[in-house]
Parts: sequence; structure tokens; C-alpha cells
Amino acid sequence: MSTATSDNDLHRRSAPLDMGPEEFRRLGHRLVDDIAAFLETLATGPVNRDESPTEVRALLPEGGLPEEGSSAERLLAEVTPMLFEHSLFNGHPRFLGYITSSAAPLGALGDLLAATINPNLGGWQLSPVATEIERQSVRWIAEMLGYPGDAGGLLVSGGNLANCHCFLAARRAKAGESVRVRGLEAKRGQLLVYASTETHTWLQKAADLFGHGTDSIRWLPVDADLRADVGALREQIETDKSRGDRPFLIVGNAGTVSTGAVDPLAEMADVAHEHDLWFHADGAYGAFAVITPGAPAELAAMSRADSIAVDPHKWLYAPLEAGCVLVRDANTLTDAFGYTPTYYRFTGEEEDPRVNFYEWGLQNSRGFRALKVWLGLRQVGRSGYARMIGDDIRLARELFERVDEEPELEALTRELSITTFRFVPAGLEVGTETYLNQLNEELLARLKASGEAFPSNAEISGTFALRACIVNFRTSLADIEALPEIVIRHGREVDSKLRPAELRT
Amino acid sequence: MSTATSDNDLHRRSAPLDMGPEEFRRLGHRLVDDIAAFLETLATGPVNRDESPTEVRALLPEGGLPEEGSSAERLLAEVTPMLFEHSLFNGHPRFLGYITSSAAPLGALGDLLAATINPNLGGWQLSPVATEIERQSVRWIAEMLGYPGDAGGLLVSGGNLANCHCFLAARRAKAGESVRVRGLEAKRGQLLVYASTETHTWLQKAADLFGHGTDSIRWLPVDADLRADVGALREQIETDKSRGDRPFLIVGNAGTVSTGAVDPLAEMADVAHEHDLWFHADGAYGAFAVITPGAPAELAAMSRADSIAVDPHKWLYAPLEAGCVLVRDANTLTDAFGYTPTYYRFTGEEEDPRVNFYEWGLQNSRGFRALKVWLGLRQVGRSGYARMIGDDIRLARELFERVDEEPELEALTRELSITTFRFVPAGLEVGTETYLNQLNEELLARLKASGEAFPSNAEISGTFALRACIVNFRTSLADIEALPEIVIRHGREVDSKLRPAELRT
Repeated sequence: MSTATSDNDLHRRSAPLDMGPEEFRRLGHRLVDDIAAFLETLATGPVNRDESPTEVRALLPEGGLPEEGSSAERLLAEVTPMLFEHSLFNGHPRFLGYITSSAAPLGALGDLLAATINPNLGGWQLSPVATEIERQSVRWIAEMLGYPGDAGGLLVSGGNLANCHCFLAARRAKAGESVRVRGLEAKRGQLLVYASTETHTWLQKAADLFGHGTDSIRWLPVDADLRADVGALREQIETDKSRGDRPFLIVGNAGTVSTGAVDPLAEMADVAHEHDLWFHADGAYGAFAVITPGAPAELAAMSRADSIAVDPHKWLYAPLEAGCVLVRDANTLTDAFGYTPTYYRFTGEEEDPRVNFYEWGLQNSRGFRALKVWLGLRQVGRSGYARMIGDDIRLARELFERVDEEPELEALTRELSITTFRFVPAGLEVGTETYLNQLNEELLARLKASGEAFPSNAEISGTFALRACIVNFRTSLADIEALPEIVIRHGREVDSKLRPAELRT
Repeated sequence: MSTATSDNDLHRRSAPLDMGPEEFRRLGHRLVDDIAAFLETLATGPVNRDESPTEVRALLPEGGLPEEGSSAERLLAEVTPMLFEHSLFNGHPRFLGYITSSAAPLGALGDLLAATINPNLGGWQLSPVATEIERQSVRWIAEMLGYPGDAGGLLVSGGNLANCHCFLAARRAKAGESVRVRGLEAKRGQLLVYASTETHTWLQKAADLFGHGTDSIRWLPVDADLRADVGALREQIETDKSRGDRPFLIVGNAGTVSTGAVDPLAEMADVAHEHDLWFHADGAYGAFAVITPGAPAELAAMSRADSIAVDPHKWLYAPLEAGCVLVRDANTLTDAFGYTPTYYRFTGEEEDPRVNFYEWGLQNSRGFRALKVWLGLRQVGRSGYARMIGDDIRLARELFERVDEEPELEALTRELSITTFRFVPAGLEVGTETYLNQLNEELLARLKASGEAFPSNAEISGTFALRACIVNFRTSLADIEALPEIVIRHGREVDSKLRPAELRT
């Protein structure tokens, strides 16, 4: 039972969580061997298994928190194969779903090292080298995106939080210091945000959770290529200003989550400049594509943004979690998140400042997620990332072309590394959009359950589309070439069961 | 340069970030050996080094992002010793600063495994076992705290975010759905929060960033033991209500960050109940102490809270980052963070629900931080944690007693595992508080620079105190016994240089 260590023991305390060097070495070597074996067979196994929550829960120990412990050795021997047999593997070459990438193996080793040292990157003092490694990583990322070297920034958990930090920096910069003390005062007119209807749901969460309400978002229509309509943006701002409301933020998508569309960022930056609004680029998915030769020209205009959100755990292939906030003026972060009087702040006057990241964002205690990001940047350099990202984009193009050649597949969109398409079985009349949506939704569920390949979906003007998003350095042309056959085979099966009599020929 | 892989290569793509099983095995074994050697010598080296940012930056590669990469082997050979020689080690037995714990070695191996599989715990489908492991971990934590088994909850980055999630759940529950759509409408009266002046700065950040403004916090005075004054709480609520404002949240501290004081949680719960307010317990530091036999009785009243924030990366000794949100009614999280219509929600009607954590909190993509938490809970069980936490508390008591015996040290407070004290040199007249504050501040800097021990500080009614916070399963009685001598030795040195002539005898 829970007896404390006796007085004598406290002199040489032995804690059940501690592990001696020999035990660590033994368990560590075994785990590394198990992971190496996993990496060896990853590509030949299924992407995932089709198991229900009940089936999965049956793998876990029953009942409440155990009163007594188990040996670390026994636990790892139980847990490692369980995870290798019952997970979905983002690192599988045929994982093409959502925007979750294959993770770099060196990043995983980096996480082991980071957790061993366990620095707290909330304060410089607690994490001297680690903080400087994070600062260098952020500078290198800024550099990749054509952003100034003295930009501010920090790593956060992912795209939602990165975008949220930028939203809050924008609010503080445009609404003034009083917003922090007195809150959002409706009497002065509503603070408004402008973004296309294709924008990721982070913006809803931000407007909602930060007290503005989702009503404060002016959703802009998109053109045929799913890019924000800048004419509508201009008109809406004029209308809102004339009503006494307070536009403060324009969000441009540097690669939408659904189809990879890049908004007209240069024009949006112009509008923001004309009206003295904050221009934020959401590059969570697409920003790093700017380093590839064939990238959409609009991406270069990210360099004009007041802030950028980007995810190293997407196109830098870092293991989760790693998002990155970038702001042109570093002081806008301390203005929004710091509580230290101005004379303590980093102004360039102090020659050797100790940056305390807790003053730059929401978190106080912070882990060493920078290590995996920094190791990746150093392992392959800019040229390595340009090659991998460029290859992902080329594979998406190849997929579009192959889909386009198949009579039973309809290619829909192709931007950055996202290709969308759908299965259209032979012998269907026109006017069957409802059935096609239903069929493709069911087909997607089938594909996901098959373990053969894992795409996800997009909704494109009411059309349910299958979506392959390639942020996966393990996907090869062979995987892409295999996809149409897999989709058509499952599609025919689903269609044969699902098609209603009136649509049969 | 950044040339893409040639068409042929795309068939069997070889990505520079990828690593074959043999290379992984080799590098992994070496890293594990290096870590084992580090664990072997950790206790005998310094806690940290006294280096400036410039000195630390000189360790890093110069210049911008490298164009070409380096081998993973070379990188690890360079980085591992650098981190082992120039970090501050929370895991050192004499690290007693802030509330950053020694991290469990099994947790570090867990992070390696988590990053290898890299599940995205935003959605069940992407992380079936991982999501169920997180759910089980949260349930076990709830159980430890005497919370109902069907409570809702999820893991987040740490205490700030855990508390912030609870704040937002409270706001949605008490202000209604409209707050999410229309935002904070000043016209209906200001939403107000009540908390003691000893509350952690997360509350300022929450009130500020979520649009309420820091003016919306009613800071409650504290008694001599630094516990919230419940009489003042009652009065303030009445006053605010009579003015038409809208009290919605009472925050009770289950262990303050400065001194470990536990607010009168039961009485605060009563007040919340009487006025239909949300009662939140901030147990980021102290909550887990409830499982030890000698814990403050008030901690048990956490079970009456509507929400609790607690940090597994504190008293469960998990590597950073791991905070935990708990809410009595699971639906309050989806009400606050989800955008799915009600009929999709987890109501118990659906028999085998797939929990998608992105609907329970701020993040969309989420890493597998649950693994290290779950492994720790299984490795030592409830009894192991009770023993380690109990020992930490006993060591703080031992420190208080030893400090109290020293004529040159003044023991100030002792709650949970935090003891505060200060150095008071011989031959000082009364009325020298200003000098004592200055002396102890300088002494703390000296101690931190010495590498011999790493306390932090607290401000107690204007007194600058040294603060030892023991959340460290490696600290033994020997370390505690060594501390007074270290403090007095450095204290005398600082005093001999710093004391002004008029205070010399």
C-alpha cells in the first residue's frame, strides 16, 4: 500500500519511477531494435486496421488505476507490439489522408533526447541551449519563407495554436493595449476578421474562444479555383467601416486545407496595407512549398504578411507536435502575451537578451519540440526539403493525370500536393449527384477500412470528393500508380450494393 | 541544389530524411548508450552552468539555414554531448526550482515510441489505440483525484492550457451558446471571475486573451496562510450581482505556485453552488498530493469542482509536455469546443463512440503525449505515486526543520512540497527589510549560477524568499541536508560584498 519511504530510506531514496543506467540501456536497446524491425516492414503491412473502439479497448488493461506497478520491461514488451499492430501509420507510403505527415526517424530519436534532458523552454534560465536552438530553428524557418531574419516567433503545438497566436498578436496590435485590460468593448464597434469560406476551422475557434464570436468573421466567397474573392473583400471592408465596425485582420490561405488553393496573397496584402489592417498568412500546410521551383507564384507574397502560421509537423515531416508562429515585428508577441514592463523587453538595446518564451505565447512550461525540427533542418538542409516537397507535389500531379485517364474516375482539383477526384461508375445517367456523393462517401469508408490506402475527403461546391494529400516522403510513384486500381475495385463493389434500382441501367 | 528527384527515382523514391532499419539501429543504440552514461553521472555533475546567451549561441552552427544536409550520425555525435554539457538538468537531485520535475526515464522511451508511430490524436480514426490510451489515462487521473469515472477530459501541453480549457468550458456553460456566436456582449453586464491574489498568471492570460480583459478578475485577499478569504468572496459576489454584472467562475487553488497553499476549497464550492457559478480547481501543481495520507484535508474537496486542471508533467514526473483537463460533465467540453451538431455527440446513446479529441479542445492535430503518462501510471501504480509524492512532501518538511535550526536562516512557509526561507546574516539591525530583499535576490542569482543547487523564489507579503519546491524523485535527504550549508556559505559571501556601510556593525 501507499506507505512512504522510511526515514532511513530518504537518505538514499530509491524511487520506483527511476531507472538505473543498466536497465535503461537494456530496455532502450530492445526498443530501438523493435523500432528498426517496424521500420523494415512498415511499407508491406496495412496502413491501419478496421477495429471498433470496443475491440481496441479490449487490448488495454481492465479496470481502474492499478494500485501496484509493473516492471518497465514487462510494460514495453506488452505495449510496443500492441502499438505496432493496432495503430494507423501516417508513415506508411500509402497514407494520404488529412495533412499528417510521415515523421522523420531522426526526429523520433530527437524526442528521446529531448525528453531525457527535459528542459523547460518557458524560461531561458531553465533551458539555455534549448532556447537558443528554438530561436535558431524559428529564424531558419523564417528564412525559408522569405521572412526577415529579425522576425519574432516560437514553436507551438500545431496549426490551430500557431494561427491563434497570430490572431491574438493582430488583435493587440490593432485594438490597442486596452483590450487586454478592459476586454472587448462592444460600444466601440465590432472587431472584424476577413477570410475565405475555404479557411480552416481554426478561425472559427479563434473568433469564438477569444470572445469575438463567430459572427465577427466575414466569410469571403471564392472563385472557381477556390481562391478568396478580393473584390468582395474590398467591398465588405468599406461596408463594415461605414457602419462603424472595426476591421482588424485579413487572413490569406497559403494552401487551403481542402484542396491546397493559394489565395491572391499579394492583392490581399495590398488591401490590408490600404486599410491599415493586419495581414496574416495561414501557411500551416502550404507555406514550405515556397522553396520549391514550381510553387505557385502567390506564395512569395507571404513575405509581406504581418504574421505567418506554419507547421513543421506537416511539410518538415517532424513528428507531432510542432507548429510555428512567425510575426514580422517580434515585439507584437510580447505586447500580446507578456506581462513584463517595457523596460525589460527585448528591444535590441540589451546586448545579450535571455529570451523567455513564456512571454511570447500562451504556454508557461514548454517542452523541447525544437530539437526534432532543428535536427531535420540540419539533416537535409534547404535543398533536401525542396527535393522532398517538390517530389510530393509532383506525385500529386502524377496522380491527377492517372485519375484523369480512367473513365471511372473524375479528376477534380490539383493544387500543391493535394489531388481530389471521385469514382463515377459506368452506366450512370446525369442528375445523379446525390447518389454520387453517397457512393463516394461510402467508398471512402471502405478504402479507409481496407488498409490498402488511406485517402480522406473534401467537399467541393457540394461535391463529395476523395482527396489524396501527399505530405509523405515515403510515397513513391508506385504507390500513386496503384491507387486508381484500388479505388475502382472498391468503388465497383460499393456501387453494386448501393445503387438504387431506378439508377440501374 | 534543390533539384527534384528524377522521374525514374520517383518509382523507388529515396528521401534524405528517411533512415533505413540498420542506420536507425546503429544510431539508436549509440544514443541509448549515451543517455545511460548521462544518467549514471547526472547526480555528481553540476545542476547547470553559468553561461551567457552569447556563449551558448557560440555552440550552435553559424549562419543561416544550411543549403545541404549533414549525416544524422554526425549530427547526433555533435548534439548529444553539447546538450549533456550545457543544459540545466531538472532531473538533477538538487534541482528544486519552479515546478519542473525530474522526468521518468520510461517516459523518455515512451516519447521515442510515440514519435515513431506518430499518431494524430485529433481524430479517433487516425489514432485508435492511442486515443483509447489517452482516455484511460484521463480516467485514471480522475480516479486518483476522487473525480467521477465518467468525467470528461483530455491531455494538453501544460497547466496554462489546462486551466484555459476549463475557463472556456465554464464560460460556455454559464454564458450560454450565444457567447460562441455573438461574442462577449458588454451590454448584458460583465462576466466576472473570482480568485485569490496568489493565483498563477494563467488567469490573467485567460481573462486577457479570451476577450474579458484582466479587469474582469476580482482578486480576493488572502489570510496569513495565503489562502483565499471566503468572506471577501461572498461579499464581492453580492456587490457585483447588485451592480448587474455576471459572476460566472470561482477559481480555487489546490496548491498555489508560490507556497503550495491550498484554498478553502469546500467553502468555495459552497459559494459556487449557492450562486450557481462554475467552480474550478487549479491543481496544476498540488492536486496529485491528495493521494498521500498526510495531504491537506481541503484537497479532497476538489471532487466537488466542475473542473480541475492538473499537470502530469509535474507530480506524475512525466517528461514535458503533459497537462490534463478534467470536467465533471464531459459534454461541457464539446459544448465549448465542438462544432458538430448535437446528434453526433457522445451522449451514452451511441454504444461504441469514437471520441475525436479535436472537438474537446483547442488543438486539431495532437501528439501522443498520453503514452508517457500512461506508462508512468502503470509502472508504479497509485501506491508508487503516493510514495514518491509523500516523500517529496516529507523532504520539504525536513528542509523547513533544518532551516529553522540555523541562526542565519529564517524559515518562512511550508505547504505541500514547497518550503520558503531566507538568509538573514548575523549582526543586522531591525528595519532592514529592503536590504534583506536585495541580499536574498542577489544570493538566489549566485546559487543558480553556482551549479550546486537550484532553488527559485517567492514573494511573500513583500518579502523576497528563497523557495525550494521538491517535485523530484531523485532528491534525497542528503541533498536537503546539504542545502543550508550551501545557502549560508554563498549568503555570507554576497553579504560581505553587498551590505552598505550604515548596516555594518
